[in-house]
Amino acid sequence: MNNYKLTIQYDGGRYKGWQRLGDNDNTIQAKIENVLTELAEEKIEIIGSGRTDAGVHALAQIANFKMRKHATENEVMQYLNRYLPHDISITHVKLMDHRFHSRYNAKDKTYLYKIWNEQYTHPFMRKYSMHVDQKLDIEKMRKAAQYFIGKHDFTSYSNAKSKKKSMEREIYSLKISENAGFIEIKIRGNGFLYNMVRKITGTLIEVGVGDMDASAIPGILKSKERIQTGRMADSEGLYLERVGF
Amino acid sequence: MNNYKLTIQYDGGRYKGWQRLGDNDNTIQAKIENVLTELAEEKIEIIGSGRTDAGVHALAQIANFKMRKHATENEVMQYLNRYLPHDISITHVKLMDHRFHSRYNAKDKTYLYKIWNEQYTHPFMRKYSMHVDQKLDIEKMRKAAQYFIGKHDFTSYSNAKSKKKSMEREIYSLKISENAGFIEIKIRGNGFLYNMVRKITGTLIEVGVGDMDASAIPGILKSKERIQTGRMADSEGLYLERVGF
Repeated sequence: MNNYKLTIQYDGGRYKGWQRLGDNDNTIQAKIENVLTELAEEKIEIIGSGRTDAGVHALAQIANFKMRKHATENEVMQYLNRYLPHDISITHVKLMDHRFHSRYNAKDKTYLYKIWNEQYTHPFMRKYSMHVDQKLDIEKMRKAAQYFIGKHDFTSYSNAKSKKKSMEREIYSLKISENAGFIEIKIRGNGFLYNMVRKITGTLIEVGVGDMDASAIPGILKSKERIQTGRMADSEGLYLERVGF
Repeated sequence: MNNYKLTIQYDGGRYKGWQRLGDNDNTIQAKIENVLTELAEEKIEIIGSGRTDAGVHALAQIANFKMRKHATENEVMQYLNRYLPHDISITHVKLMDHRFHSRYNAKDKTYLYKIWNEQYTHPFMRKYSMHVDQKLDIEKMRKAAQYFIGKHDFTSYSNAKSKKKSMEREIYSLKISENAGFIEIKIRGNGFLYNMVRKITGTLIEVGVGDMDASAIPGILKSKERIQTGRMADSEGLYLERVGF
């Protein structure tokens, strides 16, 4: 069995997220598996490093799959890019040791959130960023970001359903930068709960526009009640940027 | 009468180009005029620096209009951005001398053409660039570009219909650069005929992939026969970048 690692870029706009739900559904995983099943002439399942929610994009999602048929890295890449829809691209294929597993071996993930912070909408980025027309105070946002760094129970900042699994995650870094009208938030951690990045970003925006004081964050984390958190940032602005191994 | 200058950014993807064709049609000009007519409470006509074809984008198209009603620059900008579709944005409004005329005063225009030159499609830029999967030879393209610079009769490189008007235009510069998988062509001149930038770009691509030798260009220009020119580049990759006054 050959074990292939895929690096995948996608515009999540018209998909129901990464994870396959049924046999032929509108998810990124299903689109890729269906093409690979044709190539392999056997049923192929791919293992993603993690899920991305409906509408969320990826600059470099990682997945792996095993197949009996031998094909070179380049053959796999060309076949996929030929038959996948134009909003999903394979940017890299690598043959790996048979032990490589995209989910178990993933050590950290970096998400990027793009906010367009001008009065008017950005005609070309309107589907790839969130438009906030009130001027954001970056210094306040940076101060707020500090409260999220480290190990916390993120129950308040997620919409995860399971009450059994651990809600503890560690955020290694949370950086905010300005770039030609955009405000970019980069958040790196060992893992993220369902909607966690969008809820944290929503809070940073509320702090940035002055609707909330950063000092409230520790109490909200402590409360473990998601009702305490405010608005969630849109899916359009969110990208899975990098998976670390 | 107040004379307002507008700087306009648009995603031309779903429009039939700049120029109004009927009373309420799907053109950029009509969309803007309809909103301004509401604001002004009188019929408003805007004068664009020039037309852009169906599907072509603009980073900074310039237009002006006159109205009796007094409104500040900021009021005009906010009103337009509030009621225009999200793929058309007004990035700047300025009150001008009554003599200012976007078309007569325009001295030069710069167009930008974006080519995505990788094997796979770019999920986020697929509607904002042309995908060429064969590797382009930039040095060859730069050599070819030299033949277009200067004053020429561009009949062969346009689809302009009128045979009466002069087909002579002057190209001041034509620069080609590489940037993270994209090849960008910037062409500045005193004016451009219908489809001229896309036909010139098409030729540069043919030279870049090796389908044509640059030395053929002077003969094609001289022939004044548009049948001699090859393929035309797609509208998706073309942007009106700047109008000089």
